[in-house]
Amino acid sequence: MKSIHEPLAQQAIEVLRKNWTGTFTKPGALLYHHQWSWDSAFVAIGTVHYDQARAEQELRSLFQGQWANGLLPHIIFDPDATIKYFPSFEFWETGSSLQAPRDQQTSGIVQPPVHATAILHIYRHAQDTSRALAFLKDMFAKLQAWHAYLHRERDPQGEGLVYIRHPWESLDNSPIWDTILRRMRLRPEDIPAYTRVDTQTVNAADRPSDEDYDRYAYLVRFFSSRGYDEAEIRLDCPFLVQDVLFNALLCQADRDLAEIARIVGEDPTRFEKWAQQTSQAVNSKLWDEEHGIYVDFDLVENKQIHVQSAAGFLPLFAGIPDTNRAQRMYSYLNSRSFCGLDEACYALPSYDRQAPDFSPNRYWRGPVWINLDWLLYHGLRRYGFLEYAQRVRQSVLDLVQQHGFYEYYNPLNGEGHGTHQFSWTAALLLDML
Amino acid sequence: MKSIHEPLAQQAIEVLRKNWTGTFTKPGALLYHHQWSWDSAFVAIGTVHYDQARAEQELRSLFQGQWANGLLPHIIFDPDATIKYFPSFEFWETGSSLQAPRDQQTSGIVQPPVHATAILHIYRHAQDTSRALAFLKDMFAKLQAWHAYLHRERDPQGEGLVYIRHPWESLDNSPIWDTILRRMRLRPEDIPAYTRVDTQTVNAADRPSDEDYDRYAYLVRFFSSRGYDEAEIRLDCPFLVQDVLFNALLCQADRDLAEIARIVGEDPTRFEKWAQQTSQAVNSKLWDEEHGIYVDFDLVENKQIHVQSAAGFLPLFAGIPDTNRAQRMYSYLNSRSFCGLDEACYALPSYDRQAPDFSPNRYWRGPVWINLDWLLYHGLRRYGFLEYAQRVRQSVLDLVQQHGFYEYYNPLNGEGHGTHQFSWTAALLLDML
Repeated sequence: MKSIHEPLAQQAIEVLRKNWTGTFTKPGALLYHHQWSWDSAFVAIGTVHYDQARAEQELRSLFQGQWANGLLPHIIFDPDATIKYFPSFEFWETGSSLQAPRDQQTSGIVQPPVHATAILHIYRHAQDTSRALAFLKDMFAKLQAWHAYLHRERDPQGEGLVYIRHPWESLDNSPIWDTILRRMRLRPEDIPAYTRVDTQTVNAADRPSDEDYDRYAYLVRFFSSRGYDEAEIRLDCPFLVQDVLFNALLCQADRDLAEIARIVGEDPTRFEKWAQQTSQAVNSKLWDEEHGIYVDFDLVENKQIHVQSAAGFLPLFAGIPDTNRAQRMYSYLNSRSFCGLDEACYALPSYDRQAPDFSPNRYWRGPVWINLDWLLYHGLRRYGFLEYAQRVRQSVLDLVQQHGFYEYYNPLNGEGHGTHQFSWTAALLLDML
Repeated sequence: MKSIHEPLAQQAIEVLRKNWTGTFTKPGALLYHHQWSWDSAFVAIGTVHYDQARAEQELRSLFQGQWANGLLPHIIFDPDATIKYFPSFEFWETGSSLQAPRDQQTSGIVQPPVHATAILHIYRHAQDTSRALAFLKDMFAKLQAWHAYLHRERDPQGEGLVYIRHPWESLDNSPIWDTILRRMRLRPEDIPAYTRVDTQTVNAADRPSDEDYDRYAYLVRFFSSRGYDEAEIRLDCPFLVQDVLFNALLCQADRDLAEIARIVGEDPTRFEKWAQQTSQAVNSKLWDEEHGIYVDFDLVENKQIHVQSAAGFLPLFAGIPDTNRAQRMYSYLNSRSFCGLDEACYALPSYDRQAPDFSPNRYWRGPVWINLDWLLYHGLRRYGFLEYAQRVRQSVLDLVQQHGFYEYYNPLNGEGHGTHQFSWTAALLLDML
C-alpha cells in the first residue's frame, strides 16, 4: 500500500475488524448481522492484504452453508445475531428441501458467483502461498459443486446462460425487474405475512416499495412450496431472468476456476468450456444493439429487458465484448447517461441517469456501489480505457475519504446512504489502494 | 520489494544501470556489447520495477531492428561497440535479403518470442499506466508482425508448431542439437572463414567445441546464400527443429498478445486461436511418454529428439500439460536427474544430470540459468508445485547472493560462470524479489 493512503487503509482495516464476528465478516455494522454470499467474497478480496487466515476463514464459513446439490445460499444466518432480519431463516422454510443442510440456517436463493475469483485472488496475493494452496485444495470440490449446480440446474437447455429466479439473486431493487414484478398480479391471500426490518434503518425514499416487497416474499413462498426443486420451480416461476451481471461474473469465475483446477492438480477443461460457452451466449443473446450495452433476458416473456443498468458494462470484466462493442459501451458509459469524464459526478451511477425513474438515493436505481466500481475498474483496464478507470478509482477514494464507508452513495453529491461501516466498501477500497 | 532484500535489489539495479547504453541494456559487461532479443525482453521484465521509461525504451530499440517480413533478429549490432563479437554484422550478409532493414545492422536469425509477455508485464507493473498504454499501442503492430512471421514462415503446414533453423534460436549449445550437428558432414570448403571471440573470455572447457562452431557458421552462410528466403531455406536446411522451449514461450506470448490486443482495442481472436493450436500441437507431437517430459522434434529426420533438457519443463509456464502430465513432469524434475528436493544442489540444471554428457560448467549442457529458473518458477506456481517453486526462487537468491550476477552457475557448487554482471540475471532476480 502506498504511504499516502496509509490513514485511509488503516480506517478500512478498522471497519473490517469491527465487523469481524470470529468466523465471518458482517456486511455492515447495522442491519446486516448474518453472512451474505457475495459480500463475503468481496470482503476476502480486501482482507487478504492484511490477514490471509481471516480471508480464508471468511469463505470457509460461507461454504459451510452450501447445499447438497451445490447451491451456495445468499445468506447463512447467525443464530446468535441479536438484530432481526427479514426474511428470517424461518421464513425461507428450507426444510422443505432435502438438499438444505440440517446443521446450518440458510436462505434458499443465491448471489452472483464471484467466489472462485475471490479465492484465486487470495492465492495470488497470499503471503503464505503454501497455506493458500491448502486452502485452494479444500475449496476446489465446493467451488466445482457450486458452478456445476448453476450450469446444471439454472441452465437446463445448456445455452451457456444461467437464470436467476429472484431479484435478490442480483441487484435487489434494480429497475431491470420492474416490468416482471408489475406483471405478477397477487391476490391478497398470495402474500405471506411478514414484517420488514429495513424500515427502521433506511429512509422510506431509499427503500424498495411495499409492493415490491410483497413480490419478494411471494417468490420465497413459491420456492418453498415447491420444495426448492429447480425443475418444479422453473415450470411456472413468474420470475426467470438470464441476468447479465450474474452471467458475466460466472464467466470470469469459470475461467478462474480453471486456473484453480490447474493449481490443485485437477482438469481445467470443463471450466474453460463453460466460460467459452457463456461468453458466446452473452454476446449472442444479451447484447442491446440500440443502446450499445448488454441487458438481461426475460425467459417468461422470451425477450430482452430493455433497461440500461450499470451491470450491463460488466461483460468488460470477463473480457466478453469484442473491440467494436467495447467501444460502443464506452461511448455510452462516458456520457450524460452515466457519468461523462467532463461532468461533475461520481462514477458510476448504477442506473442510466436519463431514465425517468432514475433515483440517486434508492439502492440499485441510481446510487454508486463500490463493488460495481471495482468490477468496472478492472474491466476498463482490461480494455485499455485507462482514463475512465482512473476516474472510477478516484471516485471510490473521494467518496470514502469525504463521506465514510457507506453501503452506497449519491452519484451527484457523493452523500453516503444505507448502512455505514459497510464491509465490502472497506475491503474493495483496500484492494484498490 | 521486501526490505530484507533491499541490498540485493540495489545491487541488481546497479548491474542494470552499468549495462545501460542509453538506448538498450548490454546483456553483460564483457563479451556482449550489442543488443540481444530475448535478453532485452527479460531485462525489461525487471527494469520496469525501477524505471518504466527505460523498460519501454529497451523494447522500442529492439524492434527498430525488425525486418519488413516481421522477423525480429536475435542481435541488433551497435556500430559504436568497441568489443568485437562473432559473428559480426558483416558475417550475416543480411543485405542478401530485401526484408532486412537498411538503417540497422542485424543478424538473420531469431530468439524465443518472450516479447509480448514482457510487454504485457510492463503494462501490469507500470507506475504510469497511461504511458504504458501508449507504449502498448505503439508496439502492437510490431508484435503482431513478429508473431505472424513465425506462424506464417516457420509453420508452413499450419501445424501450430514453428521451427527453428539454428541452435542459437534457442539454447545455443544444448545437447538437443548434437545428433543433428554431427549429421552435418561438412567439407573443408563448406566452412566459412571466421574467428571466435568467446575464446578470450570463456574457459575452453565451458565453450562450445570448434566442430560445433563450424556448423553454426555454416548455417549462417547457408541462410545468406538463400537470401534469407524462408521457403528456400526450408527446402534443404539440415537443421529444422520444432523446439519445445520456443513453442511453449510462443504459446504464452500469443495468449499475452491477445490480452494486449484487447487492451489496445484490437481483435484478440486470431492470437487466442494461435495459442490454442500451439498448445494442442505441443501436446500431441512433443510429449515424451517414456521420460515424462516434453522434447523437440527433428523435421529433417521426422522424429522426436530424445534428449531431456530443462526446456522440456517449460510447457508448464504456458499452462499446456494436463494434470497427469504435469504430475509426471514433476516426478522427473524432483529426482536425481535434475535436482531433488532432498538433495544439495541448485535448481535447476539445464540438462539431465544423469546423462553421460552432462557438464556442470558448459552453457546449456548442465549449468543453472536464471531465465529458465524464472520461467519454471512461474510454471510451477501455475500448477501448484509450490515447494519446488520456492526451491527455485531460493536457488536464484542463493546463487546471486553467494556468487554474484553471473551468466550461468554450476548446479552442484554454485560457482558463477560465463560473463559476470549479467543483465537478465539481475533483472529477473529483481522481479522475483
